[in-house]
Amino acid sequence: MTDHLHSHDPLILVNFKTYSEATGKKAIALARKIFEIGNRTAVKVGVAAQFCDIIQIVAEVGVPVFGQHVDAFGPGAYTGHVTAESLKAAGATGTLLNHSERTIKIADIHSAIVRSRELGLLTVVCGGDVDVTAALSLLMPDMVAIEPPELIGTGRAVSREKPEVISNSVRKIRTVNQNVRILCGAGITTGDDIYTALKLGAEGFLIASGVVRAPDPARVMSDFCEAANRFSETGK
Amino acid sequence: MTDHLHSHDPLILVNFKTYSEATGKKAIALARKIFEIGNRTAVKVGVAAQFCDIIQIVAEVGVPVFGQHVDAFGPGAYTGHVTAESLKAAGATGTLLNHSERTIKIADIHSAIVRSRELGLLTVVCGGDVDVTAALSLLMPDMVAIEPPELIGTGRAVSREKPEVISNSVRKIRTVNQNVRILCGAGITTGDDIYTALKLGAEGFLIASGVVRAPDPARVMSDFCEAANRFSETGK
Amino acid sequence: MTDHLHSHDPLILVNFKTYSEATGKKAIALARKIFEIGNRTAVKVGVAAQFCDIIQIVAEVGVPVFGQHVDAFGPGAYTGHVTAESLKAAGATGTLLNHSERTIKIADIHSAIVRSRELGLLTVVCGGDVDVTAALSLLMPDMVAIEPPELIGTGRAVSREKPEVISNSVRKIRTVNQNVRILCGAGITTGDDIYTALKLGAEGFLIASGVVRAPDPARVMSDFCEAANRFSETGK
Amino acid sequence: MTDHLHSHDPLILVNFKTYSEATGKKAIALARKIFEIGNRTAVKVGVAAQFCDIIQIVAEVGVPVFGQHVDAFGPGAYTGHVTAESLKAAGATGTLLNHSERTIKIADIHSAIVRSRELGLLTVVCGGDVDVTAALSLLMPDMVAIEPPELIGTGRAVSREKPEVISNSVRKIRTVNQNVRILCGAGITTGDDIYTALKLGAEGFLIASGVVRAPDPARVMSDFCEAANRFSETGK
Repeated sequence: MTDHLHSHDPLILVNFKTYSEATGKKAIALARKIFEIGNRTAVKVGVAAQFCDIIQIVAEVGVPVFGQHVDAFGPGAYTGHVTAESLKAAGATGTLLNHSERTIKIADIHSAIVRSRELGLLTVVCGGDVDVTAALSLLMPDMVAIEPPELIGTGRAVSREKPEVISNSVRKIRTVNQNVRILCGAGITTGDDIYTALKLGAEGFLIASGVVRAPDPARVMSDFCEAANRFSETGK
Repeated sequence: MTDHLHSHDPLILVNFKTYSEATGKKAIALARKIFEIGNRTAVKVGVAAQFCDIIQIVAEVGVPVFGQHVDAFGPGAYTGHVTAESLKAAGATGTLLNHSERTIKIADIHSAIVRSRELGLLTVVCGGDVDVTAALSLLMPDMVAIEPPELIGTGRAVSREKPEVISNSVRKIRTVNQNVRILCGAGITTGDDIYTALKLGAEGFLIASGVVRAPDPARVMSDFCEAANRFSETGK
Repeated sequence: MTDHLHSHDPLILVNFKTYSEATGKKAIALARKIFEIGNRTAVKVGVAAQFCDIIQIVAEVGVPVFGQHVDAFGPGAYTGHVTAESLKAAGATGTLLNHSERTIKIADIHSAIVRSRELGLLTVVCGGDVDVTAALSLLMPDMVAIEPPELIGTGRAVSREKPEVISNSVRKIRTVNQNVRILCGAGITTGDDIYTALKLGAEGFLIASGVVRAPDPARVMSDFCEAANRFSETGK
Repeated sequence: MTDHLHSHDPLILVNFKTYSEATGKKAIALARKIFEIGNRTAVKVGVAAQFCDIIQIVAEVGVPVFGQHVDAFGPGAYTGHVTAESLKAAGATGTLLNHSERTIKIADIHSAIVRSRELGLLTVVCGGDVDVTAALSLLMPDMVAIEPPELIGTGRAVSREKPEVISNSVRKIRTVNQNVRILCGAGITTGDDIYTALKLGAEGFLIASGVVRAPDPARVMSDFCEAANRFSETGK
C-alpha cells in the first residue's frame, strides 16, 4: 500500500470530516464505494476517516485509511489525545496533519511527521497558501495538501478560481523539496476541476464535501477517477 | 447500562489514557479483565478508552466504554475532531470531559454536556480542585471527577494525602447539585485508598496508572472492587 | 476607586477591544471623554483598554482602567503573556477574564481570579449564557458579565432581544453568589436598553461597539449615563 | 533604527519575559542600563518588553523595544489580543513571534509577519530546532532565533552544548533564505558563549535569564557586548 501511494500517479483522498453521511456504518458503506471505484478505474484512492471508524473500515473494506489528525507525542499519560501508535494499531495507512479545521503548531507538525515516519505512517500536511505550504514541505512530510480555506466547501474549485495557487505552489515547493507529493483541494466538484489541477502540476487531491455530500457520491467519484485517467493517458 | 450507572453504588472507571499497555489488542485484553472482575465482584466498572479502540472493546467485551474527550460541536466540517455522534455510533456509554490532560473551555464543556445528554451519552466532567469542580457541577453533568493534578500518577492517593479535598468537594458540590455522582482520582493504588475515599463521600473513582501500569492489573482491580464491597456492606 | 466600584450602583464599563478608534492616542482621548461624562453625571464608568495603552490612560486620564485579559500565572519565564503583576504595575484597576473573544480554561479563570484578588485587581468574568455565567459566579469573581455571543456587535440589545437571559441569570446567579456584581452586554445602543436591563436586575454594563464605534461616542455615553441615573432615581 | 538593525553586525536582544526583575519601573531601569552599554560599546542592542511596559521604555529610554508576541489579525473586535497596530502606536521597533513559551500556528506566524512588515515592524520568529527554523525562514521574517527549548534558562549555552545546532541552522537556513538575520539563544551566560556562537555563524542573540536574572546584569551585558566587539575585530 505504502509503495503504491509513494508513486506519483494521481491520488484521490476523500476526507470524511465529521459529516453524518460518513460516520459509523455510513462511513463503511461510503469507503466501500470509493474503494470499488478506485479498483475499477485503477486510480489510487484513500479515505480520511474519523478516529472511531478507522478500525472497522480497515477490517471490512481494505481501502487505505488515513487519520484526520495525530498528536505530536507518544504513548503515555495523554488522556483524550490520538497517538501515532493508536492509528497504527487500528490499521491506518497515514494521517492528515494541520488541516485548516484542526491546525496545530509547527513544532508539533514536525514531531508528528518524525514519529509517524518511524511507525510507517504516511503524512499529509495541509497548508492554506503557497508560502505556508512551501515552508511545511521543508519538514519532509510524504505529501502536502494546499487548500485555500476561503474555497473549502464552496463548490468553487481552486483549479478554476485560483489556478495560480496550484502552479505557484508546485513551483515554490519544488525549489525546497523534490519528492513531496503535492495534493490540492477546496471546491472541487467536477472531473474537469480534477483534469485542470493535474495539468497545473497537482499530483493528487484532498476532497471532502465534493464527494461526501454529493447527491450521488459514487457518480462524482467515478467522474473524478475517470478524469484522472484521462490526464494520465493524454494530459501530461 | 445507563440505568445501572445512574444508581450511586460505587463505580470504578479505568482511564486507559494513551498508555501502550492499553492500546489496540492490549486495550481489549485489559478491558476484558476489568469487566470480568466487575462481574465477579458485582461492582460497577467501566473503561475510558482511546477513540480508535472504542468500537472493538464494545463489540468484543461488553464493558461500558467511555470516550476520553468529546468536542462541543455536532456533525459537519470539523476535520480531526470527535463528535458525540461518533462516540455514540461506536457504542460508547459516555465520555470524560475536561480531563487535566485535555482541558477545554467552559462554554465547550457546557455544549458537550448538553449534546451528549441529547444522544444518551453520560458525561464525567473532571476538575482539579474543590471550587472548579463545584462550578462544573452547576452545568449538570452526570458525574464529576475531582483529581488534584499534582497527585495524578504519583501513587500518593488523594484520599490519604488530601482527604479534605474529597470531603470539601462533596460538601460544596452538594450545595449546588444534589444528583451528580462524585468520583475522585489521583494516586489511588490500594483497596484502603478506595475504602477511605468512599468513607469521605466519594461515589466512585477515575483510575489510570494505578491499574493500567500495575505489575498485575487484575490483582489491583480485584482489591479495589473488594474494598468497594467492604464499604457497601459495612462502611456506610 | 476599588471601594467605589464595590458598591452596586450601575457601572458602565467600555471595552475598547482592538478597535482602531480606541488605540494609542485615540484611546486616551476616548477614555477622557468617558471619564468626563461619568464625572458630570456621577455615574461610575471604566474602560477596558489594550495592554499597551493602559499605563498612559492611567497617567493622563484617571478613569479606572481594566485589562482585557490576564494570564493565570505569576512572574517568571512566560514570554508573550500578561501577568496580574504587569497590569498592577501599569496602574490597572482590574481586568476582564474569559471574554467571548478571548476565552480561557476554567482552571485558568480560577487561578487568575485568585491571583488578581491577591494583588488588589478587580475581576470581571464573562460568560455567554445563564448556566455558564452562574457556574463562573461560584469562582468568586468581583463581577460577572453575561453577553450572548450571537448578539455582540449587532446593535440588537440583549435587554430587548433576550430579556429573559438577564432576568434568569440574575435569579440563578443569586442562588449561588449573593455578592457578585452582575453586568450584561451585547447589542446595547440606547439609553432605553440600559434602563430596561437595570429593571431586569443588571447592575452594570460591558459595552464596546455601542460606544466606541458610534458616530458620536460622547452623545451615546451621555445617554447611557442619564438612563442609569433615571433608573437610580425612579426605576427601582 | 530599523536601518541600523537591518545590517548584520551582531545584535543582542534581551527578552524580559514576565520576570519581576523586568516589570514596570524595573523594566525601565534595566532597559536603560542595556541601552547605555550598547551605546558605550557600539554594539546593537534591543529589549523585548512586556506589552504594558513598551510605551514607557520607548518614551524614557530610547532603546529599540520589541513586543514579545503579536496576534495575526488587525484592528477590530479582538478583545484581549495584541495587534501590530497597538505595538506600533506604542513605539515598538518590532516583535518576537512564536517564542517557545508562546507558540502559535504557522498560518498565524505568516499573517503576523506580513502585517508587521506593512506597518514597519521587524519580526523575530523563534524556532526550537534546525528544521523548524529553516521552514520558518521561508516565510521571510526579518530575523529568526533558534533556541533549543531544552536549554532555555539552564545556563548551559547552546554554543557549547549543541554547537552543531547553530552551524547546521545557519547552513540550512541559507539554502532557503539568504537575507534573514540568524539569532541564537538558550543558556548563554558568558562572553565566550557569545564569541563561539558568532564564530559558528550566528548574527545575534536572544537572551533572557542570562542577563535579566544575573546578579549583576550590567556586568554580564558588558561582557556580551565586548565579546561581540572582539569577534567583529578579530574573529571573522
